[in-house]
Amino acid sequence: MSTAKTTIILFSGELDKAIAAFIIANGAAAYDHEVTIFFTFWGLNILRKDELMRTHKGMLEKAFGWIMPRGPKKLALSKMNFVGLGPQMIKHVMKKHNALSLPELIELAQEQGIKLVACTMTMDLLGLQQEELIDSVEYAGVAAYLGDASQGQVNLFI
Amino acid sequence: MSTAKTTIILFSGELDKAIAAFIIANGAAAYDHEVTIFFTFWGLNILRKDELMRTHKGMLEKAFGWIMPRGPKKLALSKMNFVGLGPQMIKHVMKKHNALSLPELIELAQEQGIKLVACTMTMDLLGLQQEELIDSVEYAGVAAYLGDASQGQVNLFI
Amino acid sequence: MSTAKTTIILFSGELDKAIAAFIIANGAAAYDHEVTIFFTFWGLNILRKDELMRTHKGMLEKAFGWIMPRGPKKLALSKMNFVGLGPQMIKHVMKKHNALSLPELIELAQEQGIKLVACTMTMDLLGLQQEELIDSVEYAGVAAYLGDASQGQVNLFI
Repeated sequence: MSTAKTTIILFSGELDKAIAAFIIANGAAAYDHEVTIFFTFWGLNILRKDELMRTHKGMLEKAFGWIMPRGPKKLALSKMNFVGLGPQMIKHVMKKHNALSLPELIELAQEQGIKLVACTMTMDLLGLQQEELIDSVEYAGVAAYLGDASQGQVNLFI
Repeated sequence: MSTAKTTIILFSGELDKAIAAFIIANGAAAYDHEVTIFFTFWGLNILRKDELMRTHKGMLEKAFGWIMPRGPKKLALSKMNFVGLGPQMIKHVMKKHNALSLPELIELAQEQGIKLVACTMTMDLLGLQQEELIDSVEYAGVAAYLGDASQGQVNLFI
Repeated sequence: MSTAKTTIILFSGELDKAIAAFIIANGAAAYDHEVTIFFTFWGLNILRKDELMRTHKGMLEKAFGWIMPRGPKKLALSKMNFVGLGPQMIKHVMKKHNALSLPELIELAQEQGIKLVACTMTMDLLGLQQEELIDSVEYAGVAAYLGDASQGQVNLFI
């Protein structure tokens, strides 16, 4: 019997959706699915390093780079964000319940061999460069996604 | 021939997305699919009872409980909400066109044997307790979802 | 071997999500998938003609018609919209990178034989009439979607 495959396109760059995506992905990997998360558009921000990287970019790309959140600790909520209070509440509650934080969920995903793929085309559009993203990310386009997804049992767009 | 399976993760707690989810779910059930809706994060609010339940909670969980909408009649729209005017317009138009309202769609789903599953992990996070949710809801986690979805023909994240 | 099938429900009417949907759809069609996009709720606005059509409608339907964007050039972003500045930035950057614009992506989809299906039930709700939508759109309901999706390898809700 061949391995079950799960793919997730993570389009949204919000804390709550990212947590949901990584919980599903880590769960699937724990049940021996081959799991790939494709990061596109605002989802790419989850893969950004904390620190500001020096890069050579045009004005517009620089502007995007400044405005968009750098990494999983900076994300807003899709609901009840309350100028950043909501994410603090969620993080506090998650800690209280011993739930893994998003950075921990990402680490677990890497340990479980989940493929994290950044969409090169939208990286171009948003002016993101490879040195701005965390290590061990793979780079690919829509063709790679379709290859995986057409063999996937569970394919989600988040 | 085995039965077709449809699963929906309902993450969003907005009226329009909830209506879309229940129309697809009820349609699939009418065509004899085995249908499960997994309610997680803001989607859980759709399952809340109308009335305020007395519960023993921490401060933060109480705050979430107060702020989040209680049940399908209290939901906002994802677009054009206009401080609550949008949902009134949609409800008015749905009535005019004899479309089922969200509470009626939920009832129909229950009559058709659609499994409504609340994600216990996010219930913990948002401080929701079982007595706050409508009856006939089942309680499970990501493992149950993956079990169903890996056999599903149609798996959606809404 | 039968053809792979891809279906997308396009619920969202935002520029970034519409671009993502059409990139996936056009990619899948290029790899010989049979592709259908079902437009429902705010996604229907993507199919609207640029010009204002004269129609006979009730007050409420007229109001919806005025408020909602007419066609792919009028859409907002789901993030960083900045009162319309965000979409201009994205369009500018896409042009700079020689990426196809949304109207071009729609044209390409039509050339590749992607089925564009408008959900008749939500058209009723939003008061949209067939003469307001671009030509070569097909009209159907949730049953047609389920027929396609239960045979689909990749089924997404965007």
